[in-house]
Amino acid sequence: MDITQLRAVTPGCTETAFFDNAGSALHTENVTRTVVDHLLLEARLGGYAAADREDDRVEAVYASVARLLNALPEEIALVDSATRAWDMAFHAIAFRPGDRILTSRSEYPSNGLAFLQAKERFGVSVEPIPDDEHGQVDLDALAELLGQGGVRLVAVNHVPTYDGLVQPAAGIGALARRAGALYLLDACQSAGQLPLDVREIGCHLLSAAGRKYLRGPRGTGFLYVDRELVTGLRPPMLDLRSATWTGPDTFEIRPDARRFETWERSVAGLLGLGAAVDEALALGLDPIRRRIDTVADRLRAGLSGLDGVRVHDRGRVRSGIVTFAKEGRDAQQLVDGLRAAGVTATVSRPSSARFDLRARKPVEVVRASVHYYNTDDELDRLLDGVAKL
Amino acid sequence: MDITQLRAVTPGCTETAFFDNAGSALHTENVTRTVVDHLLLEARLGGYAAADREDDRVEAVYASVARLLNALPEEIALVDSATRAWDMAFHAIAFRPGDRILTSRSEYPSNGLAFLQAKERFGVSVEPIPDDEHGQVDLDALAELLGQGGVRLVAVNHVPTYDGLVQPAAGIGALARRAGALYLLDACQSAGQLPLDVREIGCHLLSAAGRKYLRGPRGTGFLYVDRELVTGLRPPMLDLRSATWTGPDTFEIRPDARRFETWERSVAGLLGLGAAVDEALALGLDPIRRRIDTVADRLRAGLSGLDGVRVHDRGRVRSGIVTFAKEGRDAQQLVDGLRAAGVTATVSRPSSARFDLRARKPVEVVRASVHYYNTDDELDRLLDGVAKL
Repeated sequence: MDITQLRAVTPGCTETAFFDNAGSALHTENVTRTVVDHLLLEARLGGYAAADREDDRVEAVYASVARLLNALPEEIALVDSATRAWDMAFHAIAFRPGDRILTSRSEYPSNGLAFLQAKERFGVSVEPIPDDEHGQVDLDALAELLGQGGVRLVAVNHVPTYDGLVQPAAGIGALARRAGALYLLDACQSAGQLPLDVREIGCHLLSAAGRKYLRGPRGTGFLYVDRELVTGLRPPMLDLRSATWTGPDTFEIRPDARRFETWERSVAGLLGLGAAVDEALALGLDPIRRRIDTVADRLRAGLSGLDGVRVHDRGRVRSGIVTFAKEGRDAQQLVDGLRAAGVTATVSRPSSARFDLRARKPVEVVRASVHYYNTDDELDRLLDGVAKL
Repeated sequence: MDITQLRAVTPGCTETAFFDNAGSALHTENVTRTVVDHLLLEARLGGYAAADREDDRVEAVYASVARLLNALPEEIALVDSATRAWDMAFHAIAFRPGDRILTSRSEYPSNGLAFLQAKERFGVSVEPIPDDEHGQVDLDALAELLGQGGVRLVAVNHVPTYDGLVQPAAGIGALARRAGALYLLDACQSAGQLPLDVREIGCHLLSAAGRKYLRGPRGTGFLYVDRELVTGLRPPMLDLRSATWTGPDTFEIRPDARRFETWERSVAGLLGLGAAVDEALALGLDPIRRRIDTVADRLRAGLSGLDGVRVHDRGRVRSGIVTFAKEGRDAQQLVDGLRAAGVTATVSRPSSARFDLRARKPVEVVRASVHYYNTDDELDRLLDGVAKL
């Protein structure tokens, strides 16, 4: 991986030492140009004629996303965010009273809100799976919970937005499938960071964001739906993309994952997402993963060597998300100080604690999420900044 | 209104005689530049830091949309399409079995699909309001239907995507309010084309698109929610923008219209929408309406004078959407021929007939939707094209 070259095509690299890749990563010139070119085409021809002209390229985005996940293009829905993708899938499940939902303690708050909505509407129960000693989902505990019967859905995030860990997605998948439970994986932080193979993971549903590790535009996301079960899922909202009004009282829903889409969308954003996915595929997700691992390890080692600094990451397998705190400094102070030193990091407040308010007090930490384009020099700027503040 | 100047800042005007303003209108240079500038800022700083920097401008978009509608900023939700806006509002209504929904015969198919979903889920009944002799909602018939009791919702579109008419929105509103029914107005074709005043119209909910007559970017839309009833509406999907997870089993939904938003969105698109709304406000919706009326009248008169051409528009009050057919030519042939002559128009298939399949056979027509920037010369090119084909 030629980091110098990759940085040369990333304008933001000259602006700041950028460590918010788990938020909204820096784009390559190619991704930005792809979006802008389509906007200019729309300005010339109008939005619909421009979309018609680029129809083949739009279709190619489905193929690219499918390749990223080892899925089929018909199993992909392109939507406006990971949240939309996850919500459309979750709310398409016809829960029955008493159905059990198992989730991780590190679940994203938006997903937690949806669980509570389902509880209110359908009388489901929501149970956090205990963590093991590394802070990740305890597979033995999951097996036991599944063994008690009645589990309709296992919904976990692959890489929590804090905690720095990678959940054992394939291990969870094997257990969920054996128990006959649906498995919805929130891959919003893993897409573009880790190799993803839906067959190997065994998930039925997977949601992801364009703007994070994939380095795509904001306002983009996608959903994978196992084609074996797509027709059994009824999207909470339909429009004339997802369904056809066939008679006064009848309609037919599309038989593929596009039943989760809406007709109107930013075609420019969608093409930008395709460009970003193609770039990730060209680099290879295995090399990307190895490089991120190397950078994150260096950062954790460096932080651990600083006085009064504690790395908060947990997990047997670590992600590119590095979280830490410094004694006597609150996280916002640190982030503000780093910004003044030309370093972009963010404040993160673990909200997994919502599942267990007594057990674990939410602690604000600094989150520095690294990507393959970060350099040793940038790590030094971050470490210097933290040491001096 | 200086049409020459307005065309000079609209690059698409030199490409084609553009009559798809009801689809996705041509953007001004300023709108495109606004979107592109923000994308370039995101490429420099990352998506989140860029959004933070432009936070005031994002807030200003709410104020602009509120001004467009004579609403309050807190009554506005900014979303990714008119469909999303309409769907989020509609599916937030807690229907009870037997509730009646009244709608227009010209309702958009996506809305029709949602009605059928509500029928399936809640056992509501959906009743099309009869048209009067002009083809618009018959207010006497509406009063009678409301008088029968049990009407929970009146949902109509302001300007149907074909038919060329403007529904009597304020008349409908007065009757709906008097009967204690909710009133949801689909303004996706009227926003940017007609003056809109939610107080005068009397609607509780109004949805609209950015890309159509407002000349904003694709992937943008907004929802107005009367602040008197917003807390009684529970959005079908929540995330950490719209609600807060307050404890293991509790959450609080925002008390304003933003409960219908999602956290992630294209900030670039949103700023582009704001620029488009500001341009419409600067021109004035009354002058815009008058100009569109003049252009549409000329076009209808010209078409009516052509051999074998029939204008299909109905309505006592007409919109900028002009529909017509030519004897012996199907609509697609005409549109293809016009495109070859540098004229952009589209094929439109009335699907209102879905409510009443026996009564009215769907007919494909050509739709030429005019805007204030269309000129006599462009009308002549369209008329010449239709005459010659």
